[in-house]
Amino acid sequence: MKIGFIGLGHMGLPMASNLLRSGNAVHVFDTSSQAIGLAVERGAIATGSIADLAAAVDVVITMLPNPAIVRSVVAGPDGVLAHAKDGTLIIECSTSDPQTARDLESMAQSSGKAMIDAPVSGGVPGAEAGTLTFMVGGTEEAFVAARPILMAMGKNIVNCGPAGSGQAAKICNNLLLGVSTIAVSESMCLGVSLGLAPDVLAAIINTSSGRCWVSEVYNPYPGVVKSAPASNDFSGGFACDLMIKDLSLALDAASGTRQPLPMTALSKQLFQLLSLKGEGSKDITAIVQMFKM
Amino acid sequence: MKIGFIGLGHMGLPMASNLLRSGNAVHVFDTSSQAIGLAVERGAIATGSIADLAAAVDVVITMLPNPAIVRSVVAGPDGVLAHAKDGTLIIECSTSDPQTARDLESMAQSSGKAMIDAPVSGGVPGAEAGTLTFMVGGTEEAFVAARPILMAMGKNIVNCGPAGSGQAAKICNNLLLGVSTIAVSESMCLGVSLGLAPDVLAAIINTSSGRCWVSEVYNPYPGVVKSAPASNDFSGGFACDLMIKDLSLALDAASGTRQPLPMTALSKQLFQLLSLKGEGSKDITAIVQMFKM
Amino acid sequence: MKIGFIGLGHMGLPMASNLLRSGNAVHVFDTSSQAIGLAVERGAIATGSIADLAAAVDVVITMLPNPAIVRSVVAGPDGVLAHAKDGTLIIECSTSDPQTARDLESMAQSSGKAMIDAPVSGGVPGAEAGTLTFMVGGTEEAFVAARPILMAMGKNIVNCGPAGSGQAAKICNNLLLGVSTIAVSESMCLGVSLGLAPDVLAAIINTSSGRCWVSEVYNPYPGVVKSAPASNDFSGGFACDLMIKDLSLALDAASGTRQPLPMTALSKQLFQLLSLKGEGSKDITAIVQMFKM
Amino acid sequence: MKIGFIGLGHMGLPMASNLLRSGNAVHVFDTSSQAIGLAVERGAIATGSIADLAAAVDVVITMLPNPAIVRSVVAGPDGVLAHAKDGTLIIECSTSDPQTARDLESMAQSSGKAMIDAPVSGGVPGAEAGTLTFMVGGTEEAFVAARPILMAMGKNIVNCGPAGSGQAAKICNNLLLGVSTIAVSESMCLGVSLGLAPDVLAAIINTSSGRCWVSEVYNPYPGVVKSAPASNDFSGGFACDLMIKDLSLALDAASGTRQPLPMTALSKQLFQLLSLKGEGSKDITAIVQMFKM
Repeated sequence: MKIGFIGLGHMGLPMASNLLRSGNAVHVFDTSSQAIGLAVERGAIATGSIADLAAAVDVVITMLPNPAIVRSVVAGPDGVLAHAKDGTLIIECSTSDPQTARDLESMAQSSGKAMIDAPVSGGVPGAEAGTLTFMVGGTEEAFVAARPILMAMGKNIVNCGPAGSGQAAKICNNLLLGVSTIAVSESMCLGVSLGLAPDVLAAIINTSSGRCWVSEVYNPYPGVVKSAPASNDFSGGFACDLMIKDLSLALDAASGTRQPLPMTALSKQLFQLLSLKGEGSKDITAIVQMFKM
Repeated sequence: MKIGFIGLGHMGLPMASNLLRSGNAVHVFDTSSQAIGLAVERGAIATGSIADLAAAVDVVITMLPNPAIVRSVVAGPDGVLAHAKDGTLIIECSTSDPQTARDLESMAQSSGKAMIDAPVSGGVPGAEAGTLTFMVGGTEEAFVAARPILMAMGKNIVNCGPAGSGQAAKICNNLLLGVSTIAVSESMCLGVSLGLAPDVLAAIINTSSGRCWVSEVYNPYPGVVKSAPASNDFSGGFACDLMIKDLSLALDAASGTRQPLPMTALSKQLFQLLSLKGEGSKDITAIVQMFKM
Repeated sequence: MKIGFIGLGHMGLPMASNLLRSGNAVHVFDTSSQAIGLAVERGAIATGSIADLAAAVDVVITMLPNPAIVRSVVAGPDGVLAHAKDGTLIIECSTSDPQTARDLESMAQSSGKAMIDAPVSGGVPGAEAGTLTFMVGGTEEAFVAARPILMAMGKNIVNCGPAGSGQAAKICNNLLLGVSTIAVSESMCLGVSLGLAPDVLAAIINTSSGRCWVSEVYNPYPGVVKSAPASNDFSGGFACDLMIKDLSLALDAASGTRQPLPMTALSKQLFQLLSLKGEGSKDITAIVQMFKM
Repeated sequence: MKIGFIGLGHMGLPMASNLLRSGNAVHVFDTSSQAIGLAVERGAIATGSIADLAAAVDVVITMLPNPAIVRSVVAGPDGVLAHAKDGTLIIECSTSDPQTARDLESMAQSSGKAMIDAPVSGGVPGAEAGTLTFMVGGTEEAFVAARPILMAMGKNIVNCGPAGSGQAAKICNNLLLGVSTIAVSESMCLGVSLGLAPDVLAAIINTSSGRCWVSEVYNPYPGVVKSAPASNDFSGGFACDLMIKDLSLALDAASGTRQPLPMTALSKQLFQLLSLKGEGSKDITAIVQMFKM
C-alpha cells in the first residue's frame, strides 16, 4: 500500500519514520524542503506538491499545525480532495476542531473518498517510540481500514464515534490536562508555603482523592518527578503556547454548543499571562512559577 | 489503655466503634445524648463532660465540625488541656487549619501533654470499614505513640511532618478534589454536547493525561460509574457545603502565606453558586448539573 | 444622495427610518420581505437583491448579525463590492471584529471603493431617537464623507483611528459593561445579604470609587433604578446572548494579539451559565438572579 | 468636648490634625512614640495608655490596621470599653468587617456606651484635606451625636443603617473598585494591542456604558490621567496589599452569608499573583503591568 504523509514537523517526521520501518512506501510533502530531506534520508519518496502526492497514493496522512491549514491542505483548490483517487482514505491526525473534522469528512464522502479524524496523544516521545494513542472519529468502515496503518505508529487506537469524535475526545482530555496542571501547581505551592516537603505532599496526593496524571507522572513542582520537565528547567514536554491553542479549540467548540466552561476559560487566561511574559515555549508545568516566590 | 472520644457524628461514631472492636476501653462525649446512647449500646462508657472524660483517660481523640469548636473543646476553660493528666496524648482528627493545629499543639506541649493533628480521608465508608487514611502532623514521638491507635481505625497512617502538617496535607489534597470535580464536569459535558457517549469519553480520559481519581472513581456524569453518587441522584458522598468549608480552609491558609490560588478560589465560588440554589447538601458531583441543560 | 441600507432588524429599521426622515432616498434590502415591507411603508425603495441595491446607490450601510454574514454580504460573489459603483462608500455598522473590518476595508480600497467600520452604542432606544454613538474606524477621508450621513442617525460620531478601530473600541467598551454588570450584581447582593437597603447602597457606591454606568443608570438590583430592565422583570435592554457574542468577539480578538483577559473570560462563562438555564434572551442584568436566593 | 484618638498612622495623624484645627482638645495614643510626638507638635495631648485616654475623654476615635487589633483595643481587658466613662461615644473608623462592628457595638451598649462604625473613603489626600467620606453604621442617636465631629474631618457623612452597615457599605464599594481596576486594565490593554491610542479609547469608554470611576479618574494605563498613580510609576494611591485585605474582608463576609462572589474572588487572586512578585506596595493600578508586554 502506498501512503502519503503531509506535515513533517516534530511529530510528523517520527510518525512517518515508523511507517517506513513497517515496510510501507511513504511519499512525503512539507513546505520545508529540509524536512523532506530528513524523511528522504530515512527512505521516504519526495513529492513536489500536495496534488502530486495525493495522486500517487492510496492513503493520505496529515499532521498539520492548525485547523485553517488543515482545511486548506485537504479541501483547497490544490488540496488532497481535488487530486486524490476515488477510494482514497484520508487520516487527519492534526489537533483540530470537531466542526472542521465533520465538514471535511462530509466533503470527502461527497467526492468518493473516506476520511477519519485521528488526533494523537503521547507527544514527541510517543511519536518516536511508536506508542501514540489515536482518538478516531469516522465511520466504522474507515476506522477498520485505518487501524492497521495507525498500529504502525501507535499502540492504542480508540474508536470514539462518528466524524469529529476524535477531535472532541482530544480537546475534552486536554482541557482536563490544562486545568490539572494549574490545580496541582496551586496545591503543591500551598503545601510548600505551609511547610510540607514537596515529595511528601506529592506522595499523599497520589494515594488520595486529589491524585491525577499530572500529580503522579508530570508533577509541576521541580524535583518531585525526576524525569518530568519541571525537574529539567521546564524544557521539552508540551509547550504552554500549544496548550493555549488546545484550550482555545475547546472553548470555541463550547461556544458552538453553548456549553459553559469556567475553569477551562480561567486556565487559558492563566497560561496566556505566563506566555505574555515570554514563557510560552516552556513546558506547561512552568505555570508553577507564577505561584512561587 | 483508656481512650476518650469526643464528637460522635457520622464519622466519629463508626471510628469509636472500631476502637471498641479492637478491645479498647472507650469513654465518649458528645453534645447530643442520643449520639452518646448509640456509642454506649456498642460498649462505650458515657461521660458527663469533656472535663470528666479528659481526667479519666490516657488518650483523647477529637472529631469535630470546625476549627472554632476544636479550639474551644481542646483549649477552652472547660476543655481537654485544662483537665487532662500530664502525658495525655491528644489525637485531633477534625478537618481544621494548620494554624489552629500548630497553636493547640504548642499549648499542649506547654502544659505537659502531647498532641497530633490527624485529619482523615475516606469518608463515612472508610470510617465504617476501618480503612481511613490519617494524615498526621506532630513530633516523631507523638506519631509513634498514636500509630497503633490509629491503626484500629484506618489503614494508611502517613507522617506528614511537624504540627499542622496533617491539616496542610488534607487541605492541599481536597482543593485538588474540588477543582477536579468541576473540571471533569466541564470536560464530560463538553464531550456530550459534541456528541460523544459519556462512557466512551470517560474511558478515553482514564487512559490519557486527563485522568484523575474523580474521572475514574467518582465521575460526575450520571451513569458512568454505577456506584458513584452521580449515578444515585447525587446522594451520599461528600456534601457541597463540606467542600465549600474545605476550600475556605485552603483559601484562608493561603491568605496567611500570601499564596495565590485562582483555580481554587473559582471552584469555591462555583460550589457557592450551587449551594445558594439549595443544592448544598448534595454530593460535590452535583456541580455537573450547572453545566448540563 | 442615494443610500442603500442592508439589514432591517430591531436596529436597522429605525436607523433607516431616520435616514428617510432626513430627506434621503433609501434603497433597502433584507432577507425578510416583511422587514422590507415595513421600510417601504415609511418611504423606502425596495430592491430585489444586494447586487441590485449596490448598483443603484452611492452609499451602502450594513447592519447585520455577525461577522460571517458581514463578510458574505460585503465581499461574497453576490455582495456589495462585486456590484457597487467605483467610489461607493460602505458604512459597516454591525458589531463585528477588528480583523474582519480591516480585511474588508482593504478589499474595498483595492476595488476602488471606500469603507468604514462604524458600530454603534445606544441600543434600540438610541436607534429610534437618532441619538446613537458611532465608533468609526477608517481613513480620515472616509470619516469626513460618512459623518453627515451618520449625523442623521446619531449624535456622537467618534473617530477611533484606522480601519478596525471602531470595532476595537466597541468590544473594549462592551467587555467593561459585561464585567461591571456582574461586579455590581455581586456588590449589591453582598450588601443586601449583610442587611443594607439596596437604594442606600447604590447611593453610596454612586458617590464613591465603585461607581460606574451600570451602578448609576442600569443597576441590576430590582427596584433601584425604576426605568432599568432590572425593575421591569429584566425585559428589554441588552440580551445576555448578545453580550455573550460581544464578549466572544473581545476574547477572539485578544487571542489574536495574545492578550490575557481573565475577568472578561470569567464574565462570558457566567453569562453562559445563565443562558444555559434558559435566560439568554433576558437583559444582561438578569445575571443578578444567579447571586440572589 | 474632649476627644481621644487612637491610631496615628498615615490616615489617623491628618484626621487628628483636622480635629485640632477645629478647636477640639485631642488626647492621642499610638504604639509608636514617634507618631505621638508628631501629634503633640500639632497641639495634641499625649496619653500613656488606652486606659488613660479612655478615662479622660467624651469621645474615642479609633483608626487601626485590622479587625483583630480593633477588637483588642476596644474590647480587650486594657481597652476602651473597660475604662471609658458611661455615655462615651466610640467612633470606629478602621476598615474592619460588619460582624466585628456589630459585636463591639453590642458590647458597648451593654456597658453603657455608644458606638458607631464609620470607615472612610478618600485616602490620605482626603484625610489631609478634611474631605473624607464617612460610611456610618449605628443607631440614629449615635449618628446624630457623631456627625459634627466627623464633619471636622470629612465632607460626606452617610447614614448606612444599623451597626455594621458602615463596614458593609465600605467593602461593597471597594470590591467594585478592585474589580473595575482589573477590568479597565484588560480593556485598555486589549484596545492598545489592537492599535487604539490609549487616550482615544479612554475618551470613548468615558462617554459610553463602560465608564467608571477607575476609567475616568484613576485610569491604570500610564499617561491617560496625568495625576493618577499609573502616570507616576504606580506610586502613592492605594496599595495592592491593602486592596487584598479589603477583598478578603468582602469574601469573608460573603462566606458568612453564603453569598457567591466569583469576580471578586478572582480579583483577589490576581492581586495576589502581583503581590507575590513583589509589587504589593504599589498602587492597585500596577495590575495593568500583568496585562502588558
